[in-house]
Formats: sequence, structure tokens, C-alpha cells
Amino acid sequence: MNRRTLLTLPLAATAPLSAAPAAPSPGTALCLNEDNSHWFFTRAGQQQYTPGGVASFVDQYAGTQVRELILSANSQRTSFASKVWDPIWLGYDPKGPDSQPLFASTAEAARPGARKWVDTAWRLHAAGIDPYALWIARARQRRISPWISMRMNDLHNVDDEKSYMHSTFWREHPEFRRLPWRHLDWRDRAFDYSNAAVRDYHFRLVEEYCERYDFDGLELDWMRFGFHFAPGKEEEGSELLTAFMQRTRRLLDVWQKRRGHRIALGARVPSRPHTALALGMDGARWAREGLVQMLTPSPFWASIETDVPVEMWRRLAGENVTLGVGLELLIRPYHAYRPLETNSLETVRGAAASLLSRGADRIYLFNYMDSQTVMADMENYPALLRECGSAATLAGKPRRHVVTYADTQAPGEASNAQLPKSLAAGQWTSFRVHTGPALSKAAARFNVEGAAQLTVRANGVECPAAGHIEAPTPGPATGFETFRLPARLSHWVILDVQASSPCTIHWVEIAGA
Amino acid sequence: MNRRTLLTLPLAATAPLSAAPAAPSPGTALCLNEDNSHWFFTRAGQQQYTPGGVASFVDQYAGTQVRELILSANSQRTSFASKVWDPIWLGYDPKGPDSQPLFASTAEAARPGARKWVDTAWRLHAAGIDPYALWIARARQRRISPWISMRMNDLHNVDDEKSYMHSTFWREHPEFRRLPWRHLDWRDRAFDYSNAAVRDYHFRLVEEYCERYDFDGLELDWMRFGFHFAPGKEEEGSELLTAFMQRTRRLLDVWQKRRGHRIALGARVPSRPHTALALGMDGARWAREGLVQMLTPSPFWASIETDVPVEMWRRLAGENVTLGVGLELLIRPYHAYRPLETNSLETVRGAAASLLSRGADRIYLFNYMDSQTVMADMENYPALLRECGSAATLAGKPRRHVVTYADTQAPGEASNAQLPKSLAAGQWTSFRVHTGPALSKAAARFNVEGAAQLTVRANGVECPAAGHIEAPTPGPATGFETFRLPARLSHWVILDVQASSPCTIHWVEIAGA
Repeated sequence: MNRRTLLTLPLAATAPLSAAPAAPSPGTALCLNEDNSHWFFTRAGQQQYTPGGVASFVDQYAGTQVRELILSANSQRTSFASKVWDPIWLGYDPKGPDSQPLFASTAEAARPGARKWVDTAWRLHAAGIDPYALWIARARQRRISPWISMRMNDLHNVDDEKSYMHSTFWREHPEFRRLPWRHLDWRDRAFDYSNAAVRDYHFRLVEEYCERYDFDGLELDWMRFGFHFAPGKEEEGSELLTAFMQRTRRLLDVWQKRRGHRIALGARVPSRPHTALALGMDGARWAREGLVQMLTPSPFWASIETDVPVEMWRRLAGENVTLGVGLELLIRPYHAYRPLETNSLETVRGAAASLLSRGADRIYLFNYMDSQTVMADMENYPALLRECGSAATLAGKPRRHVVTYADTQAPGEASNAQLPKSLAAGQWTSFRVHTGPALSKAAARFNVEGAAQLTVRANGVECPAAGHIEAPTPGPATGFETFRLPARLSHWVILDVQASSPCTIHWVEIAGA
Repeated sequence: MNRRTLLTLPLAATAPLSAAPAAPSPGTALCLNEDNSHWFFTRAGQQQYTPGGVASFVDQYAGTQVRELILSANSQRTSFASKVWDPIWLGYDPKGPDSQPLFASTAEAARPGARKWVDTAWRLHAAGIDPYALWIARARQRRISPWISMRMNDLHNVDDEKSYMHSTFWREHPEFRRLPWRHLDWRDRAFDYSNAAVRDYHFRLVEEYCERYDFDGLELDWMRFGFHFAPGKEEEGSELLTAFMQRTRRLLDVWQKRRGHRIALGARVPSRPHTALALGMDGARWAREGLVQMLTPSPFWASIETDVPVEMWRRLAGENVTLGVGLELLIRPYHAYRPLETNSLETVRGAAASLLSRGADRIYLFNYMDSQTVMADMENYPALLRECGSAATLAGKPRRHVVTYADTQAPGEASNAQLPKSLAAGQWTSFRVHTGPALSKAAARFNVEGAAQLTVRANGVECPAAGHIEAPTPGPATGFETFRLPARLSHWVILDVQASSPCTIHWVEIAGA
């Protein structure tokens, strides 16, 4: 059985097969996550919303490598007319000013923007239009597999207790928070899933999604925002989340009989197996036990992660799961690096080429949307959607393999960042870069603070200096020192680097084609 | 099938069973590694060596929890009369002065010590005594399972090309070294196993061990010293080492028929699965494929590692392997920490209690010898051998769970050290400590540089300050700030810590009973 087709297999013959979904185009391996606010923000202010106009949003992904369109439909509130959770427009007065109570706690300058989401969602509801139902139907027409993604613990704006984004349940139950004794950052204010009331509250929305929408798959997005238990309680918590996944899978088993087609369960979890386990999200077990059919190890938000250990995930999760490795939009070599920049076609090509070569079944694009939250070179968005899902379409095209880091750690867990690296005069250091399939022509690039000359070897071979260049976008303002690499390097490249004088290296990449 | 008994199962009925080894005592779970020089150093200068006297070394481990006595018999030279490798006395003139050519490159003050090893081994050989044969036989008599351990890439003294410890093969083939273009530290001068000549040279000693000694198991010690391929060549190298393990397992299959009893294959590999894989030592695969029956994830040398991810190893390596987690003798919270100290009974109890609770089948003691290379409180060595192999014998005894780090990384891989940790005034941080079974009474202890007051919570619960104490040995000279922990803490304890003013935390532990 081919893992890449696993999700589209017909339901066992014993089940009624009334409405099998159209098979997505073969050979495609992108998932695209559309978040729960972006469309509403960016399509605000229209005089009239028509079902056809709303549905047409999906069309741009038809004929691309997008195989699953994964529609995120809630944060703490829903962007549709939920009967069990608060819709985003709860408390909204369409005729009121921007200073109305719903937005009172929002900074004045941010109110018009916030209102766009709320107002668009409200208008659609008022017009009797359910955008998710339309998008799901249109996706099937376009041979794209429609999924719903549920954010399981969204913490946008939790520094503002009164933000329009928050649910009544979250506001009214500070005792259900992960660290009720501290308000240090957003992590502390997450729901603590060790409370049965929290799990039940969230399961009600799972049930509603099943009843309301006919999707091919339901993703539980545990990476929004990734912290679900009090520190030290994650090991017990892991059992609770696994039970939640079992409960969800059982519900989907019921619904796939009703719908007459398979319904997959997916999960987004932290990018590193040990971090996922330490935070109570045992995605590998969920896969081994057949609870999830799609598993998406992913960074949180701060940076794309170019070195997700796909081989380890495969060993742990087994062959019967579709592994979709999550890419985020931002890119940085370490957490304190500034300015924040977004990925470009070339940096995504690099990550995708590497991760696919390591066994990823899907490249899962998160925050790669068609406007507002976008890649650095948006003119290349169509190319990104047509190239980055397959080694064949990536072959021979310029790509950049940038050293980044894992942005999510369990409490107390050390960072795995390779950068920044300060070197004394004469000191050697090493960087590891996974480059995927062989590069016929490539260079190593370093951003160096200090006047040091570098000596560089790649897998032992001396690399002649090739001069200073301006960095492309994304990239550091002070540019790169470059070194010519031997031809046909592939997979792991270890760069052994010696500095002639004290310096700090902030960025390392291998660029080539 | 119980993993703890797996190694002692009789050979399949089809094989001739002429000399099944005596079954070790049940319920024991220590491995003890005796290195290849310690006995020769410490038993030097005797007028006469008798077989009975030599064999009696083993007796101290009879009736303890030591189940496998793992006899290391070579570094670059052998401590017995090898016909295929250089014995340690090659070039030794028993009548010559300490300044004789063999020791010419050794510092004058170190020559008498070095000579002890060489001279003792030579004298035994001259007297027709093979200590390893005697120890193997005596171990069986004492119901201890005898193993031989082969160091696969020992790099003691490689900063001195002419050291008495080096083999002719290593000296004559600098082109076979891992980084022939650099002489930075010992790692660079390791044999590069991508050379068939290197693999064949080592396999000849494997063959000789099989022919010469009737052991229950042969361990290939890939952690002496842990670097076997040029940087960037580890992925290809991994296939070569796996083939080497297959070749060895096949040879053992032949010999177990000849010997009439099972012969296990073991391997020591880096403590972290991703590090082991990145360095080309795919121990998990070796276990999954039935090549090894004992797998020992282990630090290298710089510190005991109290947080070996046993659960992850078990998942990756499967149920059919005996997992022996390696303890080293030194203890430090991070690499630059000084002074170097050795573990005590209480710190080993802590590590063992935790690792056994996480699924280790054996606690594997490396460098815990009966003299010279010894634990801090040597008077407790008998207790260590009788307590640290079982949760039952550890229960209720005082133990210390010290935060340490993994001392081995693949090139470019970041350290996982939690310490040292510098905090600004008011800053929070977290430490994670695995404590094993529940502690009825325990304290958190911090070594703090700076006058800061700490606020401490353990798994969310406030911990009252309990004053400053002198540190036990091992421990920092400036002592500990202590905090009373809630009763019945177990498994993972997350310590959330806030500093009142700038400080640096150098040591963290949980001590209790």
C-alpha cells in the first residue's frame, strides 16, 4: 500500500458507499492550511457575498499540488454559526462604532482590522452562507480533498483577558488554565486538558464539526498552541489526550458510515518526537494505534524548521500513517534573531526537497496564504503550489537550505539551535545541513559578524572562498561570505568552519540547484 | 518472554547443548564493565601470579546484583596474547629501564604507571596465564554471565603518536583517520570505518575473540570512542556498521553451535537515538533486526547521564532486546563544570531508580571498578553492587536525582544541557528532573552563584525554602539552597524557578528517599 494514497482509499466494502469523494490528482503532496480568520479579514467590506463568490476562493488551488485543503474554522471562537461554541461575532453590534464593547479592550488602531473578521463572518451568517460548507463542496469538485482543522487550545491575545477573540468558557474559567498561579506569557493561560470539563467542552465542537460538515478528514491541531498540561503533568496528560483521540476516532467511525466514505483523523504535534512526548502529545502512538491517518510534526510559529527528524518519526509512527511535515511561514536561524522575515520560494524549495527525501509524505504549508500572511516573494506563490510537493518538480531548481531551529520545547528542555555561534581566533566549529537530493552546483553561505576570514570544508573537502554577496530575501542585511562547494553533495553536509579571528556566525545556508 | 531473562534462554533444541552456562541469579540487573587496563595497573608488582589468584578477582561480584561481567580486553592493543593484533607488551623489554623506547614518548612521571599495565600483562603471558579465560570460567562458576567487550575505536593518548598504547596499524595508516586533514582533538584521529581495511582489521579481532574465549556474549563497544566516520559520511557509514554487525552476528551463530550455548551480541551506542543515528551507530535498527540481543545507550565519559530517553529507545529498539542503560563514573551538570567529581552511591541510586522506572532492563556500570577508577564513596561499593540493579532494593533509600547532560553530539548537533542557567531579576526558568518512583520526602537543591533568592514550584506546588546546606560529595563547594518538596512526587518533576536578582544556577537536583 502506498502511503501517499492511503488517505483516499475507499471505505471497506461492508460500508454503504454513497458519496465517495472525488480522488485528488495523483502525485501531489502538499497540504495547505487556511486559517480561521485570514479569508474573513482579507475579503471584508464587500457589499454582497454570494455562494459562488465565496466558494471561488478554492479555485486558485485547483490544478496545483495541493492535495488536502485544510480549513481551520475556529480559534477560541468559531468563524461559523456554532451552536456549541461562541461564534466570532458573539456580542457584535453591526451598527455600532469600532469602540463598541466587543472591541473596547482592543487598541484603537487595531479595531478596524479586528472588526473585519467579525463583520465578514457575521455578514455571511446573516446572508445564510456557510463558507466552510461551500469550500468543502468546491474542493471536492476541484479534486482537492477537503479537511476541517480544529485548533485545540488557541491563545491569540490572551494577554488581553477581554479580547474579542476569547470564548466565554475561557474567560469564565481561569481555574482551568495551565498555570493558574502565574501570568508570565501566553503559555501559562492555555487550557489545562487534565480537566474533564475542558476535554468535554472541546469534544462538543468535534461533534459539531462532524454533524455540520462532510469532510474527508478532521485535523485536531494540537500545535495551536502546543501546551495543554501543567508542567510535570504531561505524562499523565498524554493518556488523556490519547483517550481524546480514541473518542474522536470512534466518532469518525460512526460518521464515515453515515457519510459513506472514509473520514481520516489527523493531528498536528511538535516537530521533535521527544518534545511531543514530553508535552503529552504522543502522535507516534496515535499513529501506531491507528487513531490518526495523518500525522503532522510541525514547529509552532517562530520559524520554519528545516531539520524535522522525519526518519525518526517514520520509525516511531510506522508505515501506515501519512506523515505531513509542517512548514511555518517565518524563518530565522535562532529565536532572538531579527528582523522577522518570511520564507521565499527558494527557501521552501530547500526545506521541501530535504524533507521529501527524508520520507515526508506531504509538505504541509501553514500560514502560506494567498494574501496578508504571505511568503516573501508572493509573485512566486503559484510556483510554490506547483513545485514544492514533489522531488520531480523541485529537481534542478534553485533552492536554499537554511539552518533553523525547533521553536517548541517542553518545560526545561534545552534548545537545539546551532546558531548564533561565537568563535575565538583559530577555533573550529561544525554545522549540519540536510540538503536532500544531490546539488549539481552549490555554495555555503555564512553571515559573519566580525572581520574574520573563514576556512570552510564540506564533508571534508576544502571549499574555496567565493566572495561576499548581498543576501537574497529572506536573509541578513549584512550579506553572506560564500564558499564554493564540491559538486553532487547531497543529504547531510557537515560544514567544518575555522575563524581567523573572533567572530559570531548568525546565519548558515547551502544554496544551489 | 521476559526481557530480563532473554539473554539466558537455552539455545534452540536443534543445536547441540553440551555446555549451557550456569544461569545467573534471577532478579539481578546490573552489568559491570571491567576495563582492559585497570586490573593490570592495580595488581602490578606481584612476585608471582597464580591462576587461582587471578581468577579470584571475580569473586567480589558473586552474590551481588551483577548479572553480566563484561570484560574489556583491548584498546588499540590487547591485554592478552593476541595473534592478530598487537599485545600491549609489544616492544617491551622487561629488563629495560622506564626510559626504554616503548615509553620514550610518555612523560617521565607517567612511565612507572604505564609500565605497570604492560608489565603485568607480560608477566601473566610469560607465566602461561590468560586472565580472561580464567575470569570467564570463574564467572560461570559464580553464576555470573561472562562477556567480552571489544573497544572498536579507542583513542587514548592519540595526541602522542608514539604512545605505548597505539597499534602498529593505527600508527602506520594516518590515511585511515577520520579527519586526516586536521589534528584538533582525539576525535579527528579515530579510525574511519568507511575503509574496508579498517573494518577487516577489526573483524580479525572479533574472530580471535570467538576462537579464543567461551563467553556468553560479545559486546562491540562503539562508545570507545564514538566517532567512526568522516563528518557528513555517517549516513553511508551506518550501512557499513550494520553490515559489520551482521557479519559479527553470523560469526556468533557459527560459534554458538560449536560452543553449544547461545552467544549474545551487544553494542554500546550514544545515549540519544538521534545522536546515535547521526553518528552512524544505528543500534535501534540492530535490535529490530535481531542483530543485537543487548543494546546499551550510554554517555561517553564526561558525565553520567541521568536522563537517557529509555522510553524512546524501547519504542525504537523493540521488545526483543535487553536495554542496558550505561552509567559513567564522572558527574557534572554541564561540560565546562569543574571540578570533576565521581558519582556516589546516592547519585547512582537516583539514576538507577529513574532509569529502571523508565524501562531499562539493566543498569550498566562503566568505570565503576574496585580500585583506582572508583566512585566517590568507595566504602559503599558493596552496597552499590547490591542495590542499584532493582527497584525493590532501591526503595526507600536516600537518593539524589542530579541534572546532567548528554556528553556526545554528532558534528554540529547542539548540546542538550539545561545548565548553567543565568537569570535576570524576576526571570522565571524551568528545569526537568526525572525522579523515578515516588519519593516520600524530598528537597530540591540549587547551587546559585549570586545573592538571589529563589522562588520554587514543583509541578505547580509552592516549595518553602529550607535553608542553605553544605553539598555532599559529589557537589559544588558553595553548597545548595534547598526547598521542601511536596510528598509523593514521582517521575517527571518540573521545577519552575524565579530569581529575585541576577544569578547563575550551576547545579540542580532533587534528593530524597
